[in-house]
This record gives sequence, C-alpha cells and structure tokens, in this order.
Amino acid sequence: MLPATPGDFPRAFAEAWMNRDAGALAALFAEDADFVNVVGIWWEDRAAIRRAHHYGLTTFFAESRLALGRVKTRALGAGMAVVHARFRLSGQLRPEGGTAPDRQTILVTVLRDTGAGWQAVAAQNTDIMPGAETHLAGEDGLRAADYRA
Amino acid sequence: MLPATPGDFPRAFAEAWMNRDAGALAALFAEDADFVNVVGIWWEDRAAIRRAHHYGLTTFFAESRLALGRVKTRALGAGMAVVHARFRLSGQLRPEGGTAPDRQTILVTVLRDTGAGWQAVAAQNTDIMPGAETHLAGEDGLRAADYRA
Repeated sequence: MLPATPGDFPRAFAEAWMNRDAGALAALFAEDADFVNVVGIWWEDRAAIRRAHHYGLTTFFAESRLALGRVKTRALGAGMAVVHARFRLSGQLRPEGGTAPDRQTILVTVLRDTGAGWQAVAAQNTDIMPGAETHLAGEDGLRAADYRA
Repeated sequence: MLPATPGDFPRAFAEAWMNRDAGALAALFAEDADFVNVVGIWWEDRAAIRRAHHYGLTTFFAESRLALGRVKTRALGAGMAVVHARFRLSGQLRPEGGTAPDRQTILVTVLRDTGAGWQAVAAQNTDIMPGAETHLAGEDGLRAADYRA
C-alpha cells in the first residue's frame, strides 16, 4: 500500500527496511524509478531497486535498524512533491565480522500522487560525513576532507 | 539567465563553476532551494548555496574543472522535471598541497519552469565510489565497502 501523503514515504521506506522486505520497499517506487545510493550506484527501475535491497537486507543489513529523523516536505503542485529525510542506520555488519558504528544519511525523494497513494520516481541517498566539507580523491578511493582544519 | 530547458541545467551549473561565479551558480536555484552536498551538508536557501560555493570556488576548487557527462531528464508534467547528471571533477587542490585525482559525481536536481527559464528547487550530489556497494562507518569516519570482495 502506498503512503497516503508524501511525508509518510520515509516511514514506509523504514518499515519495509526493518521488515527486510525488499519487495515492499521496491513497491514504493515507480516501475521506471531512478535510485542513486550512497556510493553512486544508479538503479534505473524497480526490479533493480528490489534486487539490490534484497541482497543488502539479507546480508550486511540483515541486523540493521533504520531510524527516521527530520522530514521536510515540499509540495511541487499538481500532485508532485520532494521529501528530504534524515536517517540513522545502526547494526550494519562488517565484512570482517562484528557491527559497524552508526552512520547517518539524507535521502531525497521525488514523489507523485498515483491517486492510490504517493510513489517515488527518483531517490538519492547521501552519507553525512561529520566535520567534512567535501570529499578528496586519493589513490585508494575517497576520503572526507575538511579544509578548515 | 535561467536555462531554457531542464536538460540545459547541468551545463549552466558547470559553466558557473568554471567561471568561479558563485553568484551565477546560486542564481540557478530558487530562493528557498535545498542543496545537499557530497558529504551531507544541507543548505536550505540560495544565500547559503552561494556562500558555500564561493568559499569552495575560491579555495580548494579554484583550479578545478567540472566536465559534464550523461544527462537524463524526466518530465514530471506541469512545468516540473527531474534531471540526473554525471560530472567529472578534476584539479581539486589538496589541503597538504598538490592536486587530487579526479572524482566523479551524480547530481540530481528537481527543476521548475518559472516562465523565464528553469530553476532548481532541490539538488543533491553523491560521489561515485568505484567498486563499492555501500559505505561502512569506522571509528575515524566512513569508508567505501564492497562485501563481494
């Protein structure tokens, strides 16, 4: 069932996550939705969103908890909206074993009113790097960079 | 001057960047626009977008080049659109001196037709971490994580 209002979307996303239900999570998205994850992987349809989340939710996110923070809704008129939501992710399993520290993200979602609830046509998630101003590329990947330091 | 079509927005953004013109860059955004940068800093108005970009474009991005890649436009109907754009950023100055390797990002932007061109109401930028599936929090920040390895 789709969220009744745009502002309900982040809670519905978190509920599907907490239920490890990638099908329910993917059903919140349009058939041709775009989703860019925190490392820039770009899924361009619902099936890809479902597959990737099923994989994560049954492996490294199997024990995770997704807690919703601030939600900001912007009506775009004509049955469209943009929603920003802060999340805290805890309990992520590390490849080497054990549990990783919490991380926080901002998920932006573009939603449309289907007439039977609100559905996402685009979403993008970004990790918050406390104290950083931008990223800096290195030979072995990116790191958070704070030029004021 | 605002872009004539949604798909022109990423090029206009890159042009303002290459001209180190934070005022021109910020003018592409609505007065109350949201912008989330690659490390999750969330600016909520045009003045904040201008200040932050002026700072970056006169310091660590002063010598940088922003090259536009793929652009994908989704019409939302009723004078709204979502645009995804890939960028390659080169020439970023490192805090310790010298130039950092290139990095690539995906910028998603929600645009509205003002009648005098298209203006962004929301934008979010995410760095692409090659080979990674997600992030993993550590004691000293985040790192890219690939659980398949």
